[in-house]
Amino acid sequence: MTEHAPQPCDLLIEAGWVVPVVPHGVILPDHAVAVSGSRIVAVLPRAQARARFAPAQTVARPQAALIPGLVNAHTHNPMTLLRGVADDLPLMTWLREHIWPVEGALVGPEFVADGVTLAIAEMLRGGTTCANENYFFPDVQAAVYSKHGFRARVGLPVIDFPTAWAASDDEYFARAIEVHDTWRDDPLVAMAFAPHAPYSVSDANFERVRMLADQLDLPVHLHTHETAQEIEDSLKQYGLRPLARLDRLGLVNDRLIAVHMTQLTDAEIRLCAERGVSVVHCPESNLKLASGFCPACALLKAGVNLAIGTDGCASNNDLDMFGETRTAALLGKAVAHDAAGFSAFEALHAATLGGARALGFEHLIGSIEPGKQADLVCVDLAPLETQPLHHIVSQLVYAAGRHQVSDVWIAGQPKLRQRELVDMDTEALLAKVGHWQARIAQVRAH
Amino acid sequence: MTEHAPQPCDLLIEAGWVVPVVPHGVILPDHAVAVSGSRIVAVLPRAQARARFAPAQTVARPQAALIPGLVNAHTHNPMTLLRGVADDLPLMTWLREHIWPVEGALVGPEFVADGVTLAIAEMLRGGTTCANENYFFPDVQAAVYSKHGFRARVGLPVIDFPTAWAASDDEYFARAIEVHDTWRDDPLVAMAFAPHAPYSVSDANFERVRMLADQLDLPVHLHTHETAQEIEDSLKQYGLRPLARLDRLGLVNDRLIAVHMTQLTDAEIRLCAERGVSVVHCPESNLKLASGFCPACALLKAGVNLAIGTDGCASNNDLDMFGETRTAALLGKAVAHDAAGFSAFEALHAATLGGARALGFEHLIGSIEPGKQADLVCVDLAPLETQPLHHIVSQLVYAAGRHQVSDVWIAGQPKLRQRELVDMDTEALLAKVGHWQARIAQVRAH
Repeated sequence: MTEHAPQPCDLLIEAGWVVPVVPHGVILPDHAVAVSGSRIVAVLPRAQARARFAPAQTVARPQAALIPGLVNAHTHNPMTLLRGVADDLPLMTWLREHIWPVEGALVGPEFVADGVTLAIAEMLRGGTTCANENYFFPDVQAAVYSKHGFRARVGLPVIDFPTAWAASDDEYFARAIEVHDTWRDDPLVAMAFAPHAPYSVSDANFERVRMLADQLDLPVHLHTHETAQEIEDSLKQYGLRPLARLDRLGLVNDRLIAVHMTQLTDAEIRLCAERGVSVVHCPESNLKLASGFCPACALLKAGVNLAIGTDGCASNNDLDMFGETRTAALLGKAVAHDAAGFSAFEALHAATLGGARALGFEHLIGSIEPGKQADLVCVDLAPLETQPLHHIVSQLVYAAGRHQVSDVWIAGQPKLRQRELVDMDTEALLAKVGHWQARIAQVRAH
Repeated sequence: MTEHAPQPCDLLIEAGWVVPVVPHGVILPDHAVAVSGSRIVAVLPRAQARARFAPAQTVARPQAALIPGLVNAHTHNPMTLLRGVADDLPLMTWLREHIWPVEGALVGPEFVADGVTLAIAEMLRGGTTCANENYFFPDVQAAVYSKHGFRARVGLPVIDFPTAWAASDDEYFARAIEVHDTWRDDPLVAMAFAPHAPYSVSDANFERVRMLADQLDLPVHLHTHETAQEIEDSLKQYGLRPLARLDRLGLVNDRLIAVHMTQLTDAEIRLCAERGVSVVHCPESNLKLASGFCPACALLKAGVNLAIGTDGCASNNDLDMFGETRTAALLGKAVAHDAAGFSAFEALHAATLGGARALGFEHLIGSIEPGKQADLVCVDLAPLETQPLHHIVSQLVYAAGRHQVSDVWIAGQPKLRQRELVDMDTEALLAKVGHWQARIAQVRAH
């Protein structure tokens, strides 16, 4: 046996258990993950790690599970400022009488920047390290994500009517291309096209999205098949269900991130599987808005890539991927009438690698494997709420709360350390949030 | 204006907001609750409270909401030791191959005592102050609840086959009467009859339960209409749906705490309303076991008293009434296809006064009113996860986590103080839980 000098690395994280997601269904007790720069260099038993590496820093968490950072595959983060502004209302009343008037009065670069900052703080404290963002002012969002070293796909909005972001179809596309160009080489922030929904985007605009997404190699992030009404309206207007219309327009392919999908025939599920469409399940938003039930188990069975998203805080009302993943796993079983239909491991997969794949980030994140980015989350399982500890992944999915997240890294950089946000002035942030609370109340009083 | 000398009281809790539940839909900003002995003596604006009372102790929580203690209206707390022992399995496989073998090998007074103690710690840390308990060894449970000053209805089990608790029908009833007699005058712990379920209790035993419940003035706590299979089997065996059979046996009345109720016709909903039956909705257990969907909104609309329960940790896997209440509110809307069908205020009502009424404790708890017991919970809304603060009750139901519970009192006695359990040795408790974890693993290995 030859002795080797220990190999330098930047960080060694020793965890009670590493749940790498790949291989599927595996729990590695007393393991460590070695990180150099932004990357994972090794996953190995703790004793071997100590012998092989000479880390600049060691973080020992013997009572914690180390998991890949969670991927929130559908959110509108600036709307975090609208958390709880109006609830328990029919969708159109909620939008027309509550959300849109406030947005109309207040949405601009400052609102977007502060809302995204609050969301980043909440996501980091809850173990989320990557977001699939869908809102106006993607330029501002991208800058805020980049500033905080948070990984994101930022949606380039396309919608058939003028907003504070763009006044015409041409302006939407011109601004989209410009934002994409600014961020094209960023290591953390990339773009997607985000045509709003089948009922708010014309065939002509979908065709432009299709062409540009192909040229620029970008995903297409789209709300669709969210409600029965959407299907009915599409049949009336186009003589086709939305997915069939999108297919005619060349959009049903592996670029498509189809969000909600509560209304699906068996044939549509098969089509999604064949074409490599990713489906983002937002169970709590679908429940709260009474939109319908996404057939998550049927999608899994058909081999469709399933991801999980919280949707925006105006409808959810949080960015809690632990809660959302639990709800997905619970609800999926009930909808499929099959208690064995959606396992805890499958739920964790959807919340990590499923999201990464949907966003086109599968080569970078979503699992703990050498060569991948070190987007990592420690979950403390010592609190009595996760005791006794018969099964690590069961505890993570069915019992742990997001406040049990102790430490978070993105691309090897510490973002949360023993529950404290790194390089983020929480007090200043909350002061800004208080200011928005007052301004929103003012707008709503008129 | 006459000046009065300040009136002594034991405790004055000043909160940013008091949500009294009665009157319905009210939020009282900058209010205080005065407590003497075990009772609430006044609910009034903070400034008035300071002028009127000379409290022995003041607890100021300007960033917290004060709510009535949550009532977990259906649980099997000793099973907290089985949290995560087996998941994602069909109901009968789960019971026969996993739960029952472990229970058969280990359930006894020691298991019950330690499981209930762990559950009390978890419940207190999550703002639950009262449990409707359903398991074996009610004598042991009662003693543990009493020791920790925790309020409970303890179920006196009746089931048609022998268990570690009783060997025959006669022994079930004899032991039930004996336990009831021991605890009949206790200020915190009272009994209920807990016939297991329509499929496991004979007509003769139900008749004895009916007679004794009337004589002893006790509620009847029963799993029923949990699954479609239960209905089918009852139709085969008795020619009647379970509720019709229970009605024939004289049990469909305001003593009945009917748990689960996922299978209900409109006529059955009307019957429950007319007879004053309370329904305990356990949404997460129903989802996880794919049992079905309780029509919570339809029950509310019909005027049925609705309560919320977590069910046991072997099926849920937690005792988180914040999570359960949120799931109830979200799921109820989706099942009713009505986003306005179950408001945040109605959800909070179900988790407090609805539970109190179901348990026959409405005169004691469930709302913050003078004369009622001081079972009170402070929820810190300062963390960024509940900011901005557009609506207190929306934040409590849709965004707050149970870990935001800062302080808890039961009957005026402090149980949780700034997140620390009072008079409970958590370390010793976790050591015992670790011991059970090992014993359970041993049993399962054989």
